[in-house]
Amino acid sequence: MKSTNITWHGGQVTAKDRAALLGQRGCVVWLTGLSGSGKSTIARTLESQLVGRGHPAYVLDGDNVRHALNSDLGFSPADREENIRRISELSALFADAGIITIAAFISPYRGGRRNARRIVGPERFIETYVDVSLDECERRDPKGLYKQARAGRIADFTGVDAPYEPPDDPEVRITAAQATPVEAADKIMEYLIKREFI
Amino acid sequence: MKSTNITWHGGQVTAKDRAALLGQRGCVVWLTGLSGSGKSTIARTLESQLVGRGHPAYVLDGDNVRHALNSDLGFSPADREENIRRISELSALFADAGIITIAAFISPYRGGRRNARRIVGPERFIETYVDVSLDECERRDPKGLYKQARAGRIADFTGVDAPYEPPDDPEVRITAAQATPVEAADKIMEYLIKREFI
Repeated sequence: MKSTNITWHGGQVTAKDRAALLGQRGCVVWLTGLSGSGKSTIARTLESQLVGRGHPAYVLDGDNVRHALNSDLGFSPADREENIRRISELSALFADAGIITIAAFISPYRGGRRNARRIVGPERFIETYVDVSLDECERRDPKGLYKQARAGRIADFTGVDAPYEPPDDPEVRITAAQATPVEAADKIMEYLIKREFI
Repeated sequence: MKSTNITWHGGQVTAKDRAALLGQRGCVVWLTGLSGSGKSTIARTLESQLVGRGHPAYVLDGDNVRHALNSDLGFSPADREENIRRISELSALFADAGIITIAAFISPYRGGRRNARRIVGPERFIETYVDVSLDECERRDPKGLYKQARAGRIADFTGVDAPYEPPDDPEVRITAAQATPVEAADKIMEYLIKREFI
């Protein structure tokens, strides 16, 4: 093996080394909002745009976390809290690795999101509120979940019989009027550029 | 915002897209071995060499996982199993993101490592046995843990009063004779090149 270009210096890889390698600073775009507000679609669109521009990005959402790392958890308040705690720790590791991390979870409680901000580090936590009304989310009902919740076949459903506490002062707010995936992703991208994460 | 170079194609980012962006295929180098065998030092050396060559790599070890994501777990057999399960899921997510993931944990049970291989995907799981004898690890005892275990102040300590089941057929074997961190990292690097992960 040719090893002449190895620059090992006996120390740990620093955040600065990773930023130089990847051309970006790791951070966490934390999408919060009701079921059906479009979080996952916005997340995938943003990820695709970032990777298309040469920026390593990765989405954490129900599809790859709930059924895997957090498959042992249910939907009780304690399990929801543990779910968000683990996602926060996971997001912090991805941000440490230098990745633009996009976490898309309902995360209904202010306390849970405050805790996420603390775990990730406030300087690299970008709370992004997908602000679509319950009426509109319920009208869309892409997976038929609101219908099932109203019929009593799903319990503790956020917006129906479990609370959603909206953010007071999110870094980014996506309103229903901006909520086409591309428009929403553009708005987040602008914020990432403004803060010099990318 | 200039968005002319956005190549969003409405689809998800694929493993191929990530490989093209990062110039590598995501995988998991899973270091197993006794306490004191040098796993973490080898892991940090390999990470540093990879990043120095332009390859995004990230170490998962006790320092950043045990006290964070897995801070709710102890050292009972059930908790050790859950510890390894979560680390496996975490490693799989990092490998999905295209990162060369280096997991350094004692992981004493064959069953746990077999499960890790299944969760990560056998085609990208590189079991690496840091094969240093108990006598030698106990002689080094860098953190004084063996001494404490022998004195009965730590229970269920691997090699003392809890078993270590060595791998039968690891992808890479690091022996004590090769166990300077740089030599060990070189050997793993050669394997990554041979298998065209980098």
